[in-house]
Amino acid sequence: PRTINLAVVAGDGIGTEVVEQGLLALDAALAGSGVGVATTEFDLGARRWHATGETLTDTDLDAIRTHDAILLGAIGDPTVPSGVLERGLLLKLRFALDHYVNLRPSTLFPGVPTPLGNPGEIDFVVVREGTEGPYVGNGGAIRVGTPHEIANEVSINTAFGVERVVRDAFARAAVRPRKKLTLVHKHNVLVHAGHLWRRTVEAVNAEFPDVTVDYLHVDAATIFLVTNPARFDVIVTDNLFGDILTDLAAAITGGIGLAASANINPDRTSPSMFEPVHGSAPDIAGQGKADPTATVLSVALLLDHLGLAAQARTVEAAVAADIAERSGRVRSTAEVGKDLAARIAG
Amino acid sequence: PRTINLAVVAGDGIGTEVVEQGLLALDAALAGSGVGVATTEFDLGARRWHATGETLTDTDLDAIRTHDAILLGAIGDPTVPSGVLERGLLLKLRFALDHYVNLRPSTLFPGVPTPLGNPGEIDFVVVREGTEGPYVGNGGAIRVGTPHEIANEVSINTAFGVERVVRDAFARAAVRPRKKLTLVHKHNVLVHAGHLWRRTVEAVNAEFPDVTVDYLHVDAATIFLVTNPARFDVIVTDNLFGDILTDLAAAITGGIGLAASANINPDRTSPSMFEPVHGSAPDIAGQGKADPTATVLSVALLLDHLGLAAQARTVEAAVAADIAERSGRVRSTAEVGKDLAARIAG
Ligand SMILES: CC(C)[C@H](C(=O)O)[C@@H](O)C(=O)O
Ligand SMILES: CC(C)[C@H](C(=O)O)[C@@H](O)C(=O)O
Repeated sequence: PRTINLAVVAGDGIGTEVVEQGLLALDAALAGSGVGVATTEFDLGARRWHATGETLTDTDLDAIRTHDAILLGAIGDPTVPSGVLERGLLLKLRFALDHYVNLRPSTLFPGVPTPLGNPGEIDFVVVREGTEGPYVGNGGAIRVGTPHEIANEVSINTAFGVERVVRDAFARAAVRPRKKLTLVHKHNVLVHAGHLWRRTVEAVNAEFPDVTVDYLHVDAATIFLVTNPARFDVIVTDNLFGDILTDLAAAITGGIGLAASANINPDRTSPSMFEPVHGSAPDIAGQGKADPTATVLSVALLLDHLGLAAQARTVEAAVAADIAERSGRVRSTAEVGKDLAARIAG
Repeated sequence: PRTINLAVVAGDGIGTEVVEQGLLALDAALAGSGVGVATTEFDLGARRWHATGETLTDTDLDAIRTHDAILLGAIGDPTVPSGVLERGLLLKLRFALDHYVNLRPSTLFPGVPTPLGNPGEIDFVVVREGTEGPYVGNGGAIRVGTPHEIANEVSINTAFGVERVVRDAFARAAVRPRKKLTLVHKHNVLVHAGHLWRRTVEAVNAEFPDVTVDYLHVDAATIFLVTNPARFDVIVTDNLFGDILTDLAAAITGGIGLAASANINPDRTSPSMFEPVHGSAPDIAGQGKADPTATVLSVALLLDHLGLAAQARTVEAAVAADIAERSGRVRSTAEVGKDLAARIAG
């Protein structure tokens, strides 16, 4: 019988709470399937850093590498200097494990409150590049703290890195009914990076002639996300623009309590990582107030990645059914998790 | 009698159409004030580039420098390679004239349709840095067009540049009823630039103890712009984040047809430039379909900058009154301009 070896990084704040419910959902989805789950918990995040000064050691990373997938809760805490855990742990995982496809689907489930007056049908997916761009950590500063300080941040974009994520995005667009890919960048200002992206999309389009391509500057893309989100099918974009657009996308589809994400290594040379888009939300941590739905939907993405599509659909259907009956009811994290697991179990 | 020497750069696409109406509004606002306007038109943009290969010559720039202010329509045309006019003309003006405050107010006028179901009161202003950040044009690429291409973009941020725009933003916040300043950046990822911004805001806050400061990552800021825009009073942010946020801000307050902007040199060492946030909109150019309201509101910012606050308020009141009576009426660019000028004239 097959066993999924799952590395669990609950992390900080509400991370622990939502991951617990995510694991319940995973168990429920696999019940009776003959597939089991063996979890290894990794003590990473603020507690560990305070205790040892470590963010992610080589030993941890090597151990994580031996797993089939990673379920991550949330990273970040106000007691740790900004950037230490984000760069030293979360981004280090994404970069070290070559998660070059950061997949973030946005669907407006029926019954979900949205800030948009007339949202229309929202069902798109953002393919955010995960290993390049302004996220490479290639900045630096001189004369820090003086009136002559200069702080630079370098966005690195390579043909290799852009092409592989663009090809992945085309492949995803090609199997969707609308077969439409929108490149989002800012090539009228960031001319070097932007033109690399543009040329790459044009070139790869030849391999996917059925896919219709269009382009939006990132500023214009934010306009369409609130005035006509139905126009989007698959969006491909760089690491920073993807970060910004997917929070906005989450907002228009009911908030980050529902937004799932997958950090995928499509070549399967290392485990992919599944995490809600939301952060550690220290203001509500430990109070049972966090919505575990985003984590449960991330579990669906995990199941998909591991070839368990039927189980993934069951999880998604359970979430959709649960959401349709929410209408203002307040439930704790554990209650939502329990309800979802029950629906998944059928 | 005082004369405003105004450099007019109508530019591309709908630029000509909206600038014409902006000038009518300016004339109407100044009628009877004893202040006259002398305009110098500069033939810059796509036509000029096709004819001569020039974007902005030193001669043009020197001539523009002799003026009191610049009214700009829009720059950019699909027949010109992306970036040529944006970098060579529009951004060159902003950088050469040291427009370090890119001021973009967002007000939801009563009666304006917004994509938000429950917008609340929206009345904030974005102080976007205008001369640094990822806009500096400090990128480059090697092995272009090969599988080994690398394209970099460098964001440069200086204590000098950040401090002056932050101080300007504090000064603006200090005279507003709510006295609230929100720094938007991404200091958990762009740690060098982000921490410079953060430290600078903390330091300058000491000079403005009445101003309350908060911080949002740029991704979270897009969420609040659609879920609770009323929380914003003054936003200060870098050049690229400001570009993105102000398009979204325009979208939630009725669209870029209404969004005004001022590229200000607060030290008055060179003329400031006033322009609608929208682009050249080649798809509707020459059809009398463009809304000149954003340009007319930019004229109000121009009047404010030149110390003609009463006239600026008259222009804004005229726009507000016109908007309140729009409700779906379709008017041409010239009709809107004529109606606005008539209201301004009183
Ligand atoms: C926490 C932060 C480093 C992260 C990012 O910027 O990628 C988060 O915002 C996200 O979108 O997953
Ligand atoms: C046209 C473009 C270069 C410009 C910018 O990015 O600043 C525009 O989007 C704006 O916001 O004024």
